[in-house]
Amino acid sequence: MQATIQEIADLVEGIVEGDATTIINRPSKIEEGGAGSITFLGNSKYELYAYTTTASAMLVPKDFQPTRPIIPTLIYVEDVYSSIGILLERFGQQNAPFIGISEQAIVDKSAKIGTGTAMEALAIVKANVSIGQNCQIYAHTYIGANVRIGDNCIIYPGVKIYHDCVIGNDCVIHANTVIGADGFGFAPQEDGSFQKVAQIGNVVIEDEVEIGANTAIDRATMGSTIIRRGVKLDNLIQIGHNVEIGENTVIAAQTGVAGSTKIGKNCMIGGQVGFVGHLKIADGTKIQAQSGIASHVKQPNTALFGYPAFGYRDFMKSHAVFKQLPELRKRIQQLEKQLKQDG
Amino acid sequence: MQATIQEIADLVEGIVEGDATTIINRPSKIEEGGAGSITFLGNSKYELYAYTTTASAMLVPKDFQPTRPIIPTLIYVEDVYSSIGILLERFGQQNAPFIGISEQAIVDKSAKIGTGTAMEALAIVKANVSIGQNCQIYAHTYIGANVRIGDNCIIYPGVKIYHDCVIGNDCVIHANTVIGADGFGFAPQEDGSFQKVAQIGNVVIEDEVEIGANTAIDRATMGSTIIRRGVKLDNLIQIGHNVEIGENTVIAAQTGVAGSTKIGKNCMIGGQVGFVGHLKIADGTKIQAQSGIASHVKQPNTALFGYPAFGYRDFMKSHAVFKQLPELRKRIQQLEKQLKQDG
Amino acid sequence: MQATIQEIADLVEGIVEGDATTIINRPSKIEEGGAGSITFLGNSKYELYAYTTTASAMLVPKDFQPTRPIIPTLIYVEDVYSSIGILLERFGQQNAPFIGISEQAIVDKSAKIGTGTAMEALAIVKANVSIGQNCQIYAHTYIGANVRIGDNCIIYPGVKIYHDCVIGNDCVIHANTVIGADGFGFAPQEDGSFQKVAQIGNVVIEDEVEIGANTAIDRATMGSTIIRRGVKLDNLIQIGHNVEIGENTVIAAQTGVAGSTKIGKNCMIGGQVGFVGHLKIADGTKIQAQSGIASHVKQPNTALFGYPAFGYRDFMKSHAVFKQLPELRKRIQQLEKQLKQDG
Repeated sequence: MQATIQEIADLVEGIVEGDATTIINRPSKIEEGGAGSITFLGNSKYELYAYTTTASAMLVPKDFQPTRPIIPTLIYVEDVYSSIGILLERFGQQNAPFIGISEQAIVDKSAKIGTGTAMEALAIVKANVSIGQNCQIYAHTYIGANVRIGDNCIIYPGVKIYHDCVIGNDCVIHANTVIGADGFGFAPQEDGSFQKVAQIGNVVIEDEVEIGANTAIDRATMGSTIIRRGVKLDNLIQIGHNVEIGENTVIAAQTGVAGSTKIGKNCMIGGQVGFVGHLKIADGTKIQAQSGIASHVKQPNTALFGYPAFGYRDFMKSHAVFKQLPELRKRIQQLEKQLKQDG
Repeated sequence: MQATIQEIADLVEGIVEGDATTIINRPSKIEEGGAGSITFLGNSKYELYAYTTTASAMLVPKDFQPTRPIIPTLIYVEDVYSSIGILLERFGQQNAPFIGISEQAIVDKSAKIGTGTAMEALAIVKANVSIGQNCQIYAHTYIGANVRIGDNCIIYPGVKIYHDCVIGNDCVIHANTVIGADGFGFAPQEDGSFQKVAQIGNVVIEDEVEIGANTAIDRATMGSTIIRRGVKLDNLIQIGHNVEIGENTVIAAQTGVAGSTKIGKNCMIGGQVGFVGHLKIADGTKIQAQSGIASHVKQPNTALFGYPAFGYRDFMKSHAVFKQLPELRKRIQQLEKQLKQDG
Repeated sequence: MQATIQEIADLVEGIVEGDATTIINRPSKIEEGGAGSITFLGNSKYELYAYTTTASAMLVPKDFQPTRPIIPTLIYVEDVYSSIGILLERFGQQNAPFIGISEQAIVDKSAKIGTGTAMEALAIVKANVSIGQNCQIYAHTYIGANVRIGDNCIIYPGVKIYHDCVIGNDCVIHANTVIGADGFGFAPQEDGSFQKVAQIGNVVIEDEVEIGANTAIDRATMGSTIIRRGVKLDNLIQIGHNVEIGENTVIAAQTGVAGSTKIGKNCMIGGQVGFVGHLKIADGTKIQAQSGIASHVKQPNTALFGYPAFGYRDFMKSHAVFKQLPELRKRIQQLEKQLKQDG
């Protein structure tokens, strides 16, 4: 893509300050810049770079007030990150979608594939699968029997989807993720061994869900494990059987959710968080990375931290004292000594 | 499957209370139920639902005493979870096993494949592999040279088994799990770089082991990494080189066991637990999720929690005081002030 | 391999004490030994086994002074682990490299493949890929468009490398690892949903890097996620977009590094550690397993522990008092009671 600064400003509904005629041919990071590139100031931590970057244009928030001279032409926008999203989408076209069903894909005759859906070699589609329109199914994917996939989905290489699972429209699933493996259910026997509990439910993923690489979402014992509309899951996440993740909840990498826990809408969950099973987590809950959630969260919009987690601010206060514990112990010993002397 | 309540009761050796003639055609969750379905009360937390469920039948523990009217016919059983296992097994037959070796599987001529073993397209079996009877080898699996697999195993799509590894009978390995990658062994050099230590051992998995999706079990440097009979491993678990996991031990998702640690029999290990290397963990150890185990566990049946972990009850007591630390600090300050005044 | 003890000593530049003529035909663990095997004493924790092992030869550090009689012939070496590395390399030859490009590999005509590079069946190489000499590309790998791979690399089964990524020389990537999936970037919208931020950068992996199984390294939003020369990453690691890992840094399994964090050279990072985004971590930092790193590390060679982490020794002291917290609380209550009585 090549475009003038004015054309880009029109695209993101921004206001130009400076020369609007320069031609832009690539995005750049603010630390790197370079003539012909457009960069952005998304995080005020990086403001220092705004005064040194050599980019030709820079997206800035509408309330940005430079305190020193600046090289790039500025484009003031409502929301820098949304604007970047729009721009990168345009500049990112080089990874062009592929077209057609490869002759080396292995598609069962009973499968229904929508128009515009493309499939690479060595993708496998089993009996009674239904895939909508304009999907991109990469190589080495496995779409098990009876799976239904909606329109406009991208299934990256090596994704394995077990039988009977359902994927909505506009979903993206990254490489080597596994959808619908058996939940971890075993009944203890008297001799200490375990008998497998058959897992006959499925996984239902609603529309506009994105799932990272090497993530595992287990099928339900009965019924469905459900990932609601708009959820974003990062890499290497574990979702247990019969879990439900509410609309527009975002979960960072390596978090695990044990069986039957229901997480509400609009939650923000850090990386490496663990949830025990059978919990209900209220809408809008915010959880710091590595926290351990061992009890229900009833109050919406609670912020949690710690292991086991409690209120974010309370945890930070306790942790500050934790660092002073050896000194506090000495002060207690001092008090005891003093009282003994006084006594 | 369709069966009368009496037929189901006979199957699970249960005692019917209510109409035994109703026909059951599916299992259901207790919150959902529905006419024609059978549900269960496995966890007393869910007892409230027992009085509202619309299922036609419900498995209950033999000591269950309803305190209010109940809609479903009850089937009293010795062990609810074992009975569910038996039932789901029957109802779960719809994912019928596949038959025969696909012509699109790539099987080395020197490999020996037992009767009744089936293989999907694009499975790869290398030289001198031996696979027993009645196994299901799914698509995109890679069975490296000299690997031996017993009878009745299910190897799901995308599993990669490196050369020389050994899998017993009646094992299940879920999609995209990796068995036998190199252990993490590097010798530090004087210039700060690392020289790889060749990993020439293997992985030995005994009978009746189930392993989840996207798990990694590394081969031994020398000798074998060993997963004993009846072990159940969840998804995304890391097992380092030369580790040994004892019989019937169960490990939840995302736990990691560093090199050469030996875990005993009948242990119950939560999710996201970490073990440092070269430890011995006694039989029957119970470890709470997210704990960090940094020293040997010598006493069998110990319960541990924390980071680094210590006794479960002691940890919970310390954690209770941890939450009050800011207040405790104030009380110490108050005492100091008072003593100063008194002094 | 078969060799006399003297031949082995020459290979590792060691000094023999005892019968140098015995023929050695395999390595063994010190606990196991056996006639004809060579073992090693690498860790002084295992010294007790040195007096009971039945191996025919044993590598020991040059300053080793036995305190009791020993069965094996000793070979004194400068660095036991490096010597093991050399020996195992020799004994490990049984997993011979494969040769040639399989006719069942799917290689785009525009791809350039160096001499001596071998490829198994069902590997996929897309347009404009360049692969150097003497690489081993295993089955079920996916090498996306425009990817460049250097010489002498081993890419194990099921590895997926997205378009435009770059791999140096002498790299090893284990099974089912994913390189170059999209970074986790989403711009929050007013209605609570998220708009994807296109990820148009790549991943650059320099020379002599080894990466374990089921690891995920995300591509940069813009620019590159960079893994510097000599880095060793274990299994199931998460590397976020725009992260940089410095030369010869070693990271154990299941650690996660959030977006844009820069880790210095020669760091030693334990398993299950988490880093928040946008941090700078100084060279030579040592981090204990399961720690949570939430702020910059400015001082080189710092040792850290805890959640959130602080100095290793300070953490251990605080943790020691943490275990006594219930008792400390009692002592404070006692003091308060006493002062009240006195008052």
